Amino acid sequence: MISVSIVAVTSYTGLELVRLLAQHPVFYVSSVSARSAVGKQLGEVFPQLHAIGGANTVRRVDPALLVTEEPEQTDVAFVCLPHAAAAESVLKLLTRGIKVVDLSADFRLRNVSVYEEWYKHVHPAPWLLETAVYGLCERYRERIGSAALIANPSCHVTASILALIPAFAHGVIEPQVIIDSKSGVSGAGRSLSLTTHYAEVNEDVSAYSLTGHRHLPEIVQELEAAARDGGHPVDDALRITFVPHLIPMTRGILATCYADLKPDVHGRVPTAEEMYKLYEQYYANEPFVHVVNQAPHTKWTYGSNHCFVYPIVDARTHRLVVVSCLDNLVKGAAGQAVQNANRLCGLPETTGLSSVAVYP
Amino acid sequence: MISVSIVAVTSYTGLELVRLLAQHPVFYVSSVSARSAVGKQLGEVFPQLHAIGGANTVRRVDPALLVTEEPEQTDVAFVCLPHAAAAESVLKLLTRGIKVVDLSADFRLRNVSVYEEWYKHVHPAPWLLETAVYGLCERYRERIGSAALIANPSCHVTASILALIPAFAHGVIEPQVIIDSKSGVSGAGRSLSLTTHYAEVNEDVSAYSLTGHRHLPEIVQELEAAARDGGHPVDDALRITFVPHLIPMTRGILATCYADLKPDVHGRVPTAEEMYKLYEQYYANEPFVHVVNQAPHTKWTYGSNHCFVYPIVDARTHRLVVVSCLDNLVKGAAGQAVQNANRLCGLPETTGLSSVAVYP
Amino acid sequence: MISVSIVAVTSYTGLELVRLLAQHPVFYVSSVSARSAVGKQLGEVFPQLHAIGGANTVRRVDPALLVTEEPEQTDVAFVCLPHAAAAESVLKLLTRGIKVVDLSADFRLRNVSVYEEWYKHVHPAPWLLETAVYGLCERYRERIGSAALIANPSCHVTASILALIPAFAHGVIEPQVIIDSKSGVSGAGRSLSLTTHYAEVNEDVSAYSLTGHRHLPEIVQELEAAARDGGHPVDDALRITFVPHLIPMTRGILATCYADLKPDVHGRVPTAEEMYKLYEQYYANEPFVHVVNQAPHTKWTYGSNHCFVYPIVDARTHRLVVVSCLDNLVKGAAGQAVQNANRLCGLPETTGLSSVAVYP
Amino acid sequence: MISVSIVAVTSYTGLELVRLLAQHPVFYVSSVSARSAVGKQLGEVFPQLHAIGGANTVRRVDPALLVTEEPEQTDVAFVCLPHAAAAESVLKLLTRGIKVVDLSADFRLRNVSVYEEWYKHVHPAPWLLETAVYGLCERYRERIGSAALIANPSCHVTASILALIPAFAHGVIEPQVIIDSKSGVSGAGRSLSLTTHYAEVNEDVSAYSLTGHRHLPEIVQELEAAARDGGHPVDDALRITFVPHLIPMTRGILATCYADLKPDVHGRVPTAEEMYKLYEQYYANEPFVHVVNQAPHTKWTYGSNHCFVYPIVDARTHRLVVVSCLDNLVKGAAGQAVQNANRLCGLPETTGLSSVAVYP
Repeated sequence: MISVSIVAVTSYTGLELVRLLAQHPVFYVSSVSARSAVGKQLGEVFPQLHAIGGANTVRRVDPALLVTEEPEQTDVAFVCLPHAAAAESVLKLLTRGIKVVDLSADFRLRNVSVYEEWYKHVHPAPWLLETAVYGLCERYRERIGSAALIANPSCHVTASILALIPAFAHGVIEPQVIIDSKSGVSGAGRSLSLTTHYAEVNEDVSAYSLTGHRHLPEIVQELEAAARDGGHPVDDALRITFVPHLIPMTRGILATCYADLKPDVHGRVPTAEEMYKLYEQYYANEPFVHVVNQAPHTKWTYGSNHCFVYPIVDARTHRLVVVSCLDNLVKGAAGQAVQNANRLCGLPETTGLSSVAVYP
Repeated sequence: MISVSIVAVTSYTGLELVRLLAQHPVFYVSSVSARSAVGKQLGEVFPQLHAIGGANTVRRVDPALLVTEEPEQTDVAFVCLPHAAAAESVLKLLTRGIKVVDLSADFRLRNVSVYEEWYKHVHPAPWLLETAVYGLCERYRERIGSAALIANPSCHVTASILALIPAFAHGVIEPQVIIDSKSGVSGAGRSLSLTTHYAEVNEDVSAYSLTGHRHLPEIVQELEAAARDGGHPVDDALRITFVPHLIPMTRGILATCYADLKPDVHGRVPTAEEMYKLYEQYYANEPFVHVVNQAPHTKWTYGSNHCFVYPIVDARTHRLVVVSCLDNLVKGAAGQAVQNANRLCGLPETTGLSSVAVYP
Repeated sequence: MISVSIVAVTSYTGLELVRLLAQHPVFYVSSVSARSAVGKQLGEVFPQLHAIGGANTVRRVDPALLVTEEPEQTDVAFVCLPHAAAAESVLKLLTRGIKVVDLSADFRLRNVSVYEEWYKHVHPAPWLLETAVYGLCERYRERIGSAALIANPSCHVTASILALIPAFAHGVIEPQVIIDSKSGVSGAGRSLSLTTHYAEVNEDVSAYSLTGHRHLPEIVQELEAAARDGGHPVDDALRITFVPHLIPMTRGILATCYADLKPDVHGRVPTAEEMYKLYEQYYANEPFVHVVNQAPHTKWTYGSNHCFVYPIVDARTHRLVVVSCLDNLVKGAAGQAVQNANRLCGLPETTGLSSVAVYP
Repeated sequence: MISVSIVAVTSYTGLELVRLLAQHPVFYVSSVSARSAVGKQLGEVFPQLHAIGGANTVRRVDPALLVTEEPEQTDVAFVCLPHAAAAESVLKLLTRGIKVVDLSADFRLRNVSVYEEWYKHVHPAPWLLETAVYGLCERYRERIGSAALIANPSCHVTASILALIPAFAHGVIEPQVIIDSKSGVSGAGRSLSLTTHYAEVNEDVSAYSLTGHRHLPEIVQELEAAARDGGHPVDDALRITFVPHLIPMTRGILATCYADLKPDVHGRVPTAEEMYKLYEQYYANEPFVHVVNQAPHTKWTYGSNHCFVYPIVDARTHRLVVVSCLDNLVKGAAGQAVQNANRLCGLPETTGLSSVAVYP
């Protein structure tokens, strides 16, 4: 048994970790912390957790667990704090010899100046950026296994780059890319704002962060890396427009990605079938990424750690269009964090993550 | 390992059984049937099931399983057909020595004439009504264990009677009861109708079946039985008005039940605390029924087999008000069916059903 | 032309008044006030109002209107403040000779001690309770015409009492009543809370205020009055349980009301047809209340000032069940306020209110 | 007074015409037809229309109007039939001297071979394509005024081209365009399908028609025309990828459009401010198109005929991004049809269309 703590357990990603870990055969949650709920039982904060118990032969999470201010000593910690606060917490945890999966943005960007430009504050621990591993198993599986600090990817970014990595790795598209992403409202977290007030967002769709979203540099970094590692570097040519949209649903992200296909020396571009095969082979051994031959639905991923990717070729315009989707709180956050923690602890990557979508 | 088949797998309850059984440690699905999809692979009908596989060390359900017209030989069969068709299928399955959990209404009512009055057709196998066991483990646990045919309760009824059984069993309420039930749209099934057309039901609430819903006689039968078994028979005095409502959400049922408390010889009625204790004790050992001291939310049950029950006393009017909720597709259908099948096969009742709600 | 002001224009009822008055042929909005938006243009606070203009030959509301702290001098004022704050504002407005339609609870209850018991504070102007007229045109049409202060009914109450008044006025039901009300989320206003956070309330239904909602005394007062005025006083026998529920939709209230029918001397209770006729006649001349012979949908009222009422008799139990529905922001608030203001100003009651529901 | 008929009144666009025309000061609906409802009263098919009456001093639509099989003689007819059936109906109506606003695709494309390629059937009246006028007042106001047959634009297309026309007319963008459109479910009409079954589409987002949607040639035709008429013809260079998405909401379309800005001879591209001004001037006199300086919400248009357009420049990539939104049933269908009919009859274009969005 491996003990874990959840820092900022009152966030939606914290709660989702509780839900997933309640099913995990090896991890057990022995510490939960959150400033806003110190001294309360976990089951008081989230009454639905009272259901844990009778039906669970082994309790991986005890609803009577008291929320503390600081995390206790465990083997692994999941940090669900907002950026900046996260880095400070991570520093302390590492010092105590605890392995960390950080769900914030603090250790995702390798270049500290890019981080400081987009997040508008001085990074509290830039020296850790080098050893932190970007927690996308589909790319960095081996390095994750031996890391002490995992920077868990953001939800929009996971959907976007899983859609585009195969194409960049094989050098089949031009480096001008449009990513039109659609996200459910839980991605905005549990903090109150008019933007997430029910009557405002229900029956509404809108774009946001049109002048530049903080997830853009993360996308750029990972697509450049994929292109470079695949032997088709794009250097500084990458020109990405990323526009997120808020959709009246609780969970789910769907990213629609558009790029021009590179013609070969005869001016020929890949066919739809060729692209499908390329994608299928790229993800052939991935337990959580599924290449499909029809338009995927976010509902196919509800509550699960799976991601569906659908590449097509717009024959009229010689463009590649890739649609990908996932559950922002699972593969886009807590599920991916568990996947990373599994590797970190030498467990099969899929441990505790095998459930399929709750559908309909 | 115990083999099971799902009859009418293309229904929502059929699909929900697939989802739940994909996590079950003992059952494996070796046969799926459905007239409308004969010859197709299960993964073609429900593409999200392609996710089963890589992440599952053992495949309890194979997305490549072919849908057949008739169920194959298995240890247990789950029948998800509509009433009348269900009874015919059940008959054949029993003849083949297969234990059956029937999710239709065909074997729920013990009195064949009541069945024929409400369902307007001749019962195809009235002789089975005597041996069929009503599949509410919270009431008939022992008998379910040794049955060959389980009549799985309906969703509205499960929510309503779990809310009222303790009060009837203890004889603390008058037999005049109002049940105002609110149901998500998936309860209406996967068949198309204007009633469940998105643009009609979204942003709408309405009552239906006001002149008498088919679940009423099932409620009456089970509340009478609970009163009788508790030593407080109500005879023919039971006067129940049951009004279901359609709510713009996919899953969930919330039943609000109203009844006058019986005064004792001093004219005194139980307090809220006394009622809470009575309920808590009644369900003390139940793994799936949780008595709570705040208004429960259907979202607390999303995708899980749990039911929350909240009894209060309206001190002004000396009325008992009980609010209960559950997921209509899980505790209200497929989850309860698995719970029953567990008992039928001598497994712990909670096997494969320990997950908590997907929240938010 | 009659000038009006809207106090607390940034509330949802304030905004809804803007929307309705933008279509009104006689009123024009010359003052809008709200502490939180002083100095801003109305069109800055609600950008959709920029659409007013080009398409409107006469501008009843100017999106360039500046929000002030205090209302300016007008013929009529609509007060959308919360209780307590409302009474103070109303006092000042009346002193300035302005007629007031107050949408708060402050002047709805005629008995100051009942008010102070439920609202837990000392009423700032109890002497006004006598002259304030309860703004339900269907009951107090004449008195509204000559009033200076109208207490606009609450949304839940409007739906509930329109459903029950005919039965009480004719003395056909026993005074024990259950009101199970279902409300859209906009009824909770524009202030932020976890209860109205999208991810919490979407795909969820729950009951609230189970131990007593502040609208209960308002219901009691008006049903007692209807019974008395109809010649069938209920004295203190009225025993009402009122349970509101939150439904995942923006607009709409549906109240399902249950009461025992009084048998006549022969033990006979009215038939469904008789009750339908009784209701139809009661509301025969009402422009906004429509008795229907099928279960009504809240969507039939979306954005309109109409209310649908459907009375049925549960023949098995000799109960009357009445379902009524309306748009909580229109007939349940701003529309009813305009209806009252119309009468107050000697205009036809329906002026500016003739639109039908936006459906689907 | 001008008499109008609505053909296929049982469709959502037919119903929306009823709603809008019930408020129209000049038109009155004297004929409604629909095969599926012949002999029924309009108020039987849509019970919410019973609200028309008491509150309307003049009844523009009578809920007692009988639905007929064929439209009666009127001044103007609105045809809401699906393509092919529409053309046949239009032919007959024109023969009878009735002016027609056709809401189908049958007369939108000027090139009959393009029509036949995309709609896969022989056009029943190709000779009418020349005289039919594309009903976008913002472009063809004058010609609409003197036409006999108006081809009302589709919803996706209206949103897309209003977003892009100013840029093409001024020749400031390259002719490679991505249109990512998000539509509410009512756009799919009132016919039943699993795609619009509540439980399937609620809490879901998906892309559709990825290999080519029928609205693409309409977009191409109108953008080419705008470029040509603006003196910046694109000839055959136009390369548009149009991907529609289904959003879990009833009404609303939001189109996000992406295009590279053309650098001037100095390699300079327009600034955000310059683009904003260009758009603002282009639509300066339009009553229904509003250029805004923040991301617009579909909810700003709910139930109204307004369209909001928000152009920005992505400075990092030198791309123009334009977000536009409208209500698919109003400006995207029935409202635009009334706007066209107004012009057709010499009325001010905004007659009967001045309402603002129902918000929230």
